[in-house]
Amino acid sequence: MTQYIGMVAAVLTSASFIPQAIQVIKTKDTSGISLSMYSMFVLGVALWTVHGFIINDLAVIFANIVTFFFASIVLGYKIKYK
Amino acid sequence: MTQYIGMVAAVLTSASFIPQAIQVIKTKDTSGISLSMYSMFVLGVALWTVHGFIINDLAVIFANIVTFFFASIVLGYKIKYK
Repeated sequence: MTQYIGMVAAVLTSASFIPQAIQVIKTKDTSGISLSMYSMFVLGVALWTVHGFIINDLAVIFANIVTFFFASIVLGYKIKYK
Repeated sequence: MTQYIGMVAAVLTSASFIPQAIQVIKTKDTSGISLSMYSMFVLGVALWTVHGFIINDLAVIFANIVTFFFASIVLGYKIKYK
């Protein structure tokens, strides 16, 4: 049960960046998106992944690798189409 | 050392939503922001907080309470000014 809550949380927060990445890819509209946010966020998510390995928590590791991938797409589009 | 990486990660990912929240408050421009993303994300962050209490990890608890606060502001503006 305890790992399920973490897994649902992981799926929700990580998967949430999929519609955001699809939206910026389709529309190239990044005007409302903060460059500061995504710069800090992508770096932070990379460190969360390291933290996940240290505390050996599967939800933290899995969630942050997926999040890193999609948030990086958003950051890339923000830099290209700001 | 191990807790420091988690804390830096927590500060970065949580604080990253501060410039995003400030930007939407100032500009009311949420056109590039995905409603699906923030709906899933805010719910997921709430569950991450629960997960943090279960695994008793201070970085996870702290990060997600702060993230929840600022991401909720972005979600609120997205709903109001979509």
